[in-house]
Amino acid sequence: MRVKTIVPVTTERFIEPTKQEAERYASKRTEIDVEALNYGTASIESAYDELLCAPDILRIVQEAESNEFDGIFIDCMGDPALDASRELVKIPVVGPARTSILFAADLAEKFSIVTILENVLRVERNLAKLAGVSDKLASVRSVDIPVLELEERKKLMNALVEESVKALEEDNAQAIILGCTGMMEVAKDLQDSLTERGFEVPVINPVAVAIKHLESLISLNLSQSKRAYMHPPEKERNLFEKLPGE
Amino acid sequence: MRVKTIVPVTTERFIEPTKQEAERYASKRTEIDVEALNYGTASIESAYDELLCAPDILRIVQEAESNEFDGIFIDCMGDPALDASRELVKIPVVGPARTSILFAADLAEKFSIVTILENVLRVERNLAKLAGVSDKLASVRSVDIPVLELEERKKLMNALVEESVKALEEDNAQAIILGCTGMMEVAKDLQDSLTERGFEVPVINPVAVAIKHLESLISLNLSQSKRAYMHPPEKERNLFEKLPGE
Amino acid sequence: MRVKTIVPVTTERFIEPTKQEAERYASKRTEIDVEALNYGTASIESAYDELLCAPDILRIVQEAESNEFDGIFIDCMGDPALDASRELVKIPVVGPARTSILFAADLAEKFSIVTILENVLRVERNLAKLAGVSDKLASVRSVDIPVLELEERKKLMNALVEESVKALEEDNAQAIILGCTGMMEVAKDLQDSLTERGFEVPVINPVAVAIKHLESLISLNLSQSKRAYMHPPEKERNLFEKLPGE
Amino acid sequence: MRVKTIVPVTTERFIEPTKQEAERYASKRTEIDVEALNYGTASIESAYDELLCAPDILRIVQEAESNEFDGIFIDCMGDPALDASRELVKIPVVGPARTSILFAADLAEKFSIVTILENVLRVERNLAKLAGVSDKLASVRSVDIPVLELEERKKLMNALVEESVKALEEDNAQAIILGCTGMMEVAKDLQDSLTERGFEVPVINPVAVAIKHLESLISLNLSQSKRAYMHPPEKERNLFEKLPGE
Amino acid sequence: MRVKTIVPVTTERFIEPTKQEAERYASKRTEIDVEALNYGTASIESAYDELLCAPDILRIVQEAESNEFDGIFIDCMGDPALDASRELVKIPVVGPARTSILFAADLAEKFSIVTILENVLRVERNLAKLAGVSDKLASVRSVDIPVLELEERKKLMNALVEESVKALEEDNAQAIILGCTGMMEVAKDLQDSLTERGFEVPVINPVAVAIKHLESLISLNLSQSKRAYMHPPEKERNLFEKLPGE
Amino acid sequence: MRVKTIVPVTTERFIEPTKQEAERYASKRTEIDVEALNYGTASIESAYDELLCAPDILRIVQEAESNEFDGIFIDCMGDPALDASRELVKIPVVGPARTSILFAADLAEKFSIVTILENVLRVERNLAKLAGVSDKLASVRSVDIPVLELEERKKLMNALVEESVKALEEDNAQAIILGCTGMMEVAKDLQDSLTERGFEVPVINPVAVAIKHLESLISLNLSQSKRAYMHPPEKERNLFEKLPGE
Repeated sequence: MRVKTIVPVTTERFIEPTKQEAERYASKRTEIDVEALNYGTASIESAYDELLCAPDILRIVQEAESNEFDGIFIDCMGDPALDASRELVKIPVVGPARTSILFAADLAEKFSIVTILENVLRVERNLAKLAGVSDKLASVRSVDIPVLELEERKKLMNALVEESVKALEEDNAQAIILGCTGMMEVAKDLQDSLTERGFEVPVINPVAVAIKHLESLISLNLSQSKRAYMHPPEKERNLFEKLPGE
Repeated sequence: MRVKTIVPVTTERFIEPTKQEAERYASKRTEIDVEALNYGTASIESAYDELLCAPDILRIVQEAESNEFDGIFIDCMGDPALDASRELVKIPVVGPARTSILFAADLAEKFSIVTILENVLRVERNLAKLAGVSDKLASVRSVDIPVLELEERKKLMNALVEESVKALEEDNAQAIILGCTGMMEVAKDLQDSLTERGFEVPVINPVAVAIKHLESLISLNLSQSKRAYMHPPEKERNLFEKLPGE
Repeated sequence: MRVKTIVPVTTERFIEPTKQEAERYASKRTEIDVEALNYGTASIESAYDELLCAPDILRIVQEAESNEFDGIFIDCMGDPALDASRELVKIPVVGPARTSILFAADLAEKFSIVTILENVLRVERNLAKLAGVSDKLASVRSVDIPVLELEERKKLMNALVEESVKALEEDNAQAIILGCTGMMEVAKDLQDSLTERGFEVPVINPVAVAIKHLESLISLNLSQSKRAYMHPPEKERNLFEKLPGE
Repeated sequence: MRVKTIVPVTTERFIEPTKQEAERYASKRTEIDVEALNYGTASIESAYDELLCAPDILRIVQEAESNEFDGIFIDCMGDPALDASRELVKIPVVGPARTSILFAADLAEKFSIVTILENVLRVERNLAKLAGVSDKLASVRSVDIPVLELEERKKLMNALVEESVKALEEDNAQAIILGCTGMMEVAKDLQDSLTERGFEVPVINPVAVAIKHLESLISLNLSQSKRAYMHPPEKERNLFEKLPGE
Repeated sequence: MRVKTIVPVTTERFIEPTKQEAERYASKRTEIDVEALNYGTASIESAYDELLCAPDILRIVQEAESNEFDGIFIDCMGDPALDASRELVKIPVVGPARTSILFAADLAEKFSIVTILENVLRVERNLAKLAGVSDKLASVRSVDIPVLELEERKKLMNALVEESVKALEEDNAQAIILGCTGMMEVAKDLQDSLTERGFEVPVINPVAVAIKHLESLISLNLSQSKRAYMHPPEKERNLFEKLPGE
Repeated sequence: MRVKTIVPVTTERFIEPTKQEAERYASKRTEIDVEALNYGTASIESAYDELLCAPDILRIVQEAESNEFDGIFIDCMGDPALDASRELVKIPVVGPARTSILFAADLAEKFSIVTILENVLRVERNLAKLAGVSDKLASVRSVDIPVLELEERKKLMNALVEESVKALEEDNAQAIILGCTGMMEVAKDLQDSLTERGFEVPVINPVAVAIKHLESLISLNLSQSKRAYMHPPEKERNLFEKLPGE
């Protein structure tokens, strides 16, 4: 099967590691095609960023269906443009936030999301509300590190462990969701650190669960309900034509 | 006070009637400035449309604050770009859906929204969830008339009365919210029709309540909490510069 | 428009400052008539007090409609006799608690109420439940100062700042509602104190929002739904006739 | 044990049948003292009526504790003055609505209340919300018969059966609560009628469950939490002294 | 009336004190028959234990109805096999967890359960969810003492007081439910200790309330709804025949 | 990977078709081992049946971990013994109800479960409550066909289509979950029938999603949180030793 993975920002250096991360979890026979945006923002750390990135995400979504991809993964924990993408196409579109939240709701009674900046706490809480499981959300905590500095791995790990332990001890979480898909390659180390400290809890890597969940949907021929996500009516739309080709 | 009213679509013929509608309800001393989009869609009937209109809404929002407007009204029942706009500026930004929902939650135990097309039922339900009062939402019903045909007033009135009566009788609603800001000048007639049929219930005109609510916020020096809607961090963003000037 | 403001206690010295407070926020053309009770309690600090004040509130409500007032504001954060008043008359009746809660639900995801005594925590929580937005209520906290000592302004301000900061830091509130309408003239100072401490959050003065909201309802010809608040059936009622005239 | 039963209206002809009804369900050793109001309304069919009856209910409540009653039962499905009564005294005070709702929540997943008039639907729904189990409330339905005509037993039975069957079939209720304590001596017949129609569901008589529940509380030395229902602070209160003695 | 009390574990030394505890609270005329299991576990401290005990509980339930008992009390705060028992028989079956939760929901706005081990926190939280009142559950706390060591009374009392005070002060509980029916004879002492510390809150003994509630149901001829708990269809079942007689 | 699939009833003729159904959806490299019970009931159509089957399910679960299976699938829509199994072992255990509910919560706003008999409506509703998404459950409907007659395929299909259409039209569902794992090989036909009738909605086959979800968990090294599902403490347990070997 062929999966279009959208890195929904303009930062091209994320493409290669995202491809590696996605392929690490995908089935061997899954072809992972990764594409970043021409128009948008360097990272997503607000609803504002999400909206500036949305038009180019939607362009790629539409092209992916035309180019006969089997499914689409929008690789950002804000699930930017997820609902609109699901309206636009019939092939399944998954977001890592919604998928992680539902996996966590299966594996635990209460879970926490440990994300980047305070700016996106509202965004994550709203995604849990719309997923329908906000009663199971113990907390959203932030490590206070911007997306573009997540590569400083040691600083990230220390902050992740600290906030995860607070989530488990103070907020009664029983599972941890990594709150940014840019937190790559840290899930296993965080899991190990928590285990060392006596916490036997799942650490959910949103890229990993989204890829596997999308593969499940594709192989079962399942997709978003078109009664929930109806196709947009025809009309005049002029944004795309005003954006210059590359 | 000076209020920027954004008609968040590219259909310029809505500007004048919107200005009249807003001025009908605004205080005499309120200056209403109405602006439509350069880029976007002719109407909003899906999450997809909302996202294509969002960048130009955000441009106007930012300019409005620079130009010392006192508040902003985004005139569409999808409340497009509302959260992002609230992040971007300090002056209050109101959406008609959220405002109508909270007015209805005050005046009744249960209310219904009667909107345009089935396509946007999900959108309205999600707005009620995020406003926090979905327990009071009796139903969202649609008249099955696209935005650009709402001017056929008789057809609209018949459909509005029919769906409102169903909402009141079958769904136990006690108040009706008009589900599209393009349903102009019909609130009073709908109220009268319902009264004739024995239903003494408020019919909420979203333009009217949003304008009054915004005036209240401005005059009380109240605005969205910046702890809920933090200002987006600085970073490279390239969408606006790629959009041609007019 | 003419607004009847009911000071729903027997303490006449509240009448003048209430009039000033209400007029500060009302439109110039709004006539504010303030009236206190003949029968009831000196202040309201329990459900018991609310009930002892209710009959005389209802008398004034009924007279206000007969005397062609356009709307009624019951000036106490317990919203005493609000539902019964709404049954009794067709003109809009607003309570400051319900109004403040809905304003806060618009401007923030989570808000706290900082009230007078522990005795009324239950009352405020129940009002949030019945408003329908208890998911957004971060906490109700008390300054532990009785109504009749609220005039000791410095003590009040210190306690308000302390409890508000706890609400913001410990309970994750993003907006503060003053929990007693006797906390007059402190909203701005509290807002300034919080801003100095780095909290850019709205402080909601219940008198102010209730007056503006009532003006909005009156000017839009909106009132409580009579399907939610039906008129009481005719029957023998003997309380009023047993209460002596003045 | 000695139980004060308050018929919280001024209709004295209810005293005797209420005493019989309460004694039918009470333990032999329980002394049932029934008292109606001097001041108030002939029946309770609105929040307005509840408030006009509240002061005299509270007078009796206070006297009952002074006179060493062991518990108090306020015999009306609006649970009028229940919270205030619980503030006022240490002996347990029970309301039939809250008790019936909790019994029904034990015996079924979903239950309906079949009450007198549409006017009180809001009241009953709010009581379920405050009891905390509104998710289990399938519906509140009314037989459209005023309290003072409930003695027309055949008409009442027909209407009760009709609305109960609708509750069971259309609203998926699995238990029925009689929605007015004036519906005396009909529970068993309704139960039999429903059984004949194939519905093996509990019919909850609010007087019966309230009396038994109160006896349970008294015998276990349990009462309302004084952290939930704190004693009202001392202050000037002048309503009672203005009401003439008999 | 005759009540079958099931000690749903194989530890026979619990039979006599359970009988004493139940008789202490039951009416004089109630005959209490206590029976422990032949097959199962020595105590219940997990869902696993509940399931291993369930078959023999169900055997006793069925026999109790055949032997014309009037009601059944399953004496364990996990309410093991409660739903299945209610399917199986027409006589009322009560569980102490569900009963305590509903009593607490009557007497307070918020309550906590103080139980034995962390292992059963999930179980108690789920019981509150299914009772329908999880909004009123302030917390579930554990004393970290296994069931079979609860007889060390001093250690138990110290731990109970400590956790109850935390529940009241930190979690805002207003009532305490003893979280294990093996915590016998401590309710009064805990209540006294809390009162000494200034907390006037009900301490709910689950055995006591379950016995009284069951007596109420029996005397009112009320039982679980058979539309909620339908009788299991006939079919081949071979577990019981494989279990050896004693 | 090696997956133990438990057919949690004693009906051996289900083993072969279950193996075929599971293998149809599993990855080629997944080894599916199917085992039915020695002790229990011929089918599961009540909580009573679930409990009679639980001990033998738990025996197989424990053996599966000892025998180095990588994960366990309990193949029944009541998710019998799921929580206890998760306590007992560290390898992931999945139930088809919980998995289907979370898949549906991803793909739609509202979904319905179409199950076998009215007897299990309560069971399915409770599973949705405990999964945390009961707000998204539009309805549970039954085809009124016992498990052991599900092989009459035409009758089943007609009933499934009829109830699914009602769920979509009357209950506003947007996705359908097959409510019994014995409804094998019908998902695709039901999907086609609904598509023909104009309903473009996902039909979720619980066996299929559970197998894929379990494969995802295993391949990502994820399992149930041991803070949610703690291992049962050691103690005397005598049920297994009393059950005869084969």
